Amino acid sequence: MQPTVEDVAREAGVSRQTVSNVLNAPERVRPETRERVEAAIAKLGYRPNRVAQSLRASSSRMIGYRIEPVHPHAVGSIHDRFLHALADAGRAEDHHLLLYTADDLSDEVANALALHRAGAIDGIVLYGLHAGDPRPPALLEQRIPFAAFGRTGHDDAHPWVDVDNAAGTAAATRHLAEAGHRRVAFVGYPRGTDVGERRAEGWRSALDALGLPPGPDLRGEDSLATGAHLGARLLDDDDPPTAVVAATDTLAAGLLRAARDRGARLAVVGFDDTPTAAALDLSSVRQPIEAVGHAMIRALLNGPLSNGPKPDDLPAARLLHPELIVRGSSTTP
Amino acid sequence: MQPTVEDVAREAGVSRQTVSNVLNAPERVRPETRERVEAAIAKLGYRPNRVAQSLRASSSRMIGYRIEPVHPHAVGSIHDRFLHALADAGRAEDHHLLLYTADDLSDEVANALALHRAGAIDGIVLYGLHAGDPRPPALLEQRIPFAAFGRTGHDDAHPWVDVDNAAGTAAATRHLAEAGHRRVAFVGYPRGTDVGERRAEGWRSALDALGLPPGPDLRGEDSLATGAHLGARLLDDDDPPTAVVAATDTLAAGLLRAARDRGARLAVVGFDDTPTAAALDLSSVRQPIEAVGHAMIRALLNGPLSNGPKPDDLPAARLLHPELIVRGSSTTP
Repeated sequence: MQPTVEDVAREAGVSRQTVSNVLNAPERVRPETRERVEAAIAKLGYRPNRVAQSLRASSSRMIGYRIEPVHPHAVGSIHDRFLHALADAGRAEDHHLLLYTADDLSDEVANALALHRAGAIDGIVLYGLHAGDPRPPALLEQRIPFAAFGRTGHDDAHPWVDVDNAAGTAAATRHLAEAGHRRVAFVGYPRGTDVGERRAEGWRSALDALGLPPGPDLRGEDSLATGAHLGARLLDDDDPPTAVVAATDTLAAGLLRAARDRGARLAVVGFDDTPTAAALDLSSVRQPIEAVGHAMIRALLNGPLSNGPKPDDLPAARLLHPELIVRGSSTTP
Repeated sequence: MQPTVEDVAREAGVSRQTVSNVLNAPERVRPETRERVEAAIAKLGYRPNRVAQSLRASSSRMIGYRIEPVHPHAVGSIHDRFLHALADAGRAEDHHLLLYTADDLSDEVANALALHRAGAIDGIVLYGLHAGDPRPPALLEQRIPFAAFGRTGHDDAHPWVDVDNAAGTAAATRHLAEAGHRRVAFVGYPRGTDVGERRAEGWRSALDALGLPPGPDLRGEDSLATGAHLGARLLDDDDPPTAVVAATDTLAAGLLRAARDRGARLAVVGFDDTPTAAALDLSSVRQPIEAVGHAMIRALLNGPLSNGPKPDDLPAARLLHPELIVRGSSTTP
């Protein structure tokens, strides 16, 4: 049997109220008494029931998050940073993260629904959205509060936070042009993914604004081998580019390998400033992940999870700006 | 006001028992009825109370874990893989992970204590243990169930899982000797850390077994700059080593950079097989993190969290074996 407050009070030789004070307002209790009560709590293994408290408050103070599988081909990820940022932001607001896994997007919704119905979470954070993503409409229909990192194009009905991907690749392109490059290529994700198209668009529009013609635009899956393969294709060109803006650090690492293997010069800028970028001396566009995490938790708590009156305007939405980190891969002559 | 089972039953035009069946034994309910009840649940936003259920069961079915800060100088981490492995293993056992942050080890214990007392978690998983670690004794005193990834030297009182660090560096050393290297150095953490000493010991004892004299043994903090600095010192030696076993991929990346900057040849093996290792074509010792995660969850659930009779023998303990991943950094002539 679980020990009760009465058991603790008896063990410590104090009143039930004193035990309650130690738990809820320890500053009101004299240190010697507090220590005695804490010793009794430890000895008996007593656990007051925040579960019962959260029942009364109708809140679990928990936010659900599906932990992403580790991408087997990517050379680095910002996921670790994002998770830490969410946990930190949650702590500041007295919420914890509940992690769950899922086999796919519909399994993610089903798990979130089960946890929400069970009262285990108050709402969830979504990661990696794309056009046609089935999660937002399903969550809205099931009335599960959520905030999204990324946009689907139908984002008026829920809070979201995103990073301006086009601004990141535009900054990378201007940086390469300032270093004297006139033929700047782009290597990115397969066509049709929103994030990939925004990164391509930033490169294209920056070249246009600079009065430079677009260099080659090659696409492929996000792997080192693909980056190396596309790098070899670029270098085999009759008029090879002298610089490349890559949509990820993984593709950038492959481009650097292709250049090294041929003893060729190729200035490269990656995206995400993963830990690998520092190891490769790779310039890279850094997303403000810590700010994203805090903005998402605030958006969720001030929006769908708020108990106060809902504002009439659109849900909180924020577009944050990335920062270009310059290293040797784009500056070494 | 939160809607009740009665509200759902009225909305769907069914009995209270039918609603309960949809929630707890949906296979007993005809599909059309189930759909009607589920529509009513969604419309009203009803949430049955697993909180109340966990109160009766005296279990939150949650395992706490402190998410580590992202190491600013390391070029990669296995933390993301470890977290995913824990979440996956928890799912298989019907438990979820609750993530919390902490400023330091004593804050970690204080947060775990608060969460455990509150009934929010049943126990925790510890990461990164070291000799003299204050957490195990504090958690034992507070009767908070836990399992540890790593050992402190006083591990008889709780379950732990560890990876045989010495076996990993020994395999790396034998691999380099087989490739013809006769002067093999070690670059590791500052002296005095258990994991660091075990990795050094594997290198030293493997050389001894091979009848080779130990090469230089240099130590420093786990950063790219330190690796590059120690690499330069090795190459400046009158009788420079031709190969190095590094205690981390970060130090290994620095060693490779030092060799590249001088146009020198240096075979290098790292440790942890972080995503960066693939990007650098770096051979590395890979910890079986997925197996560690599953072993830890099982150790916790079958040990301290078990409601069954406790076995008389020592808590579950497992030492798992790492695997050497061979890439170009140790094989290219």
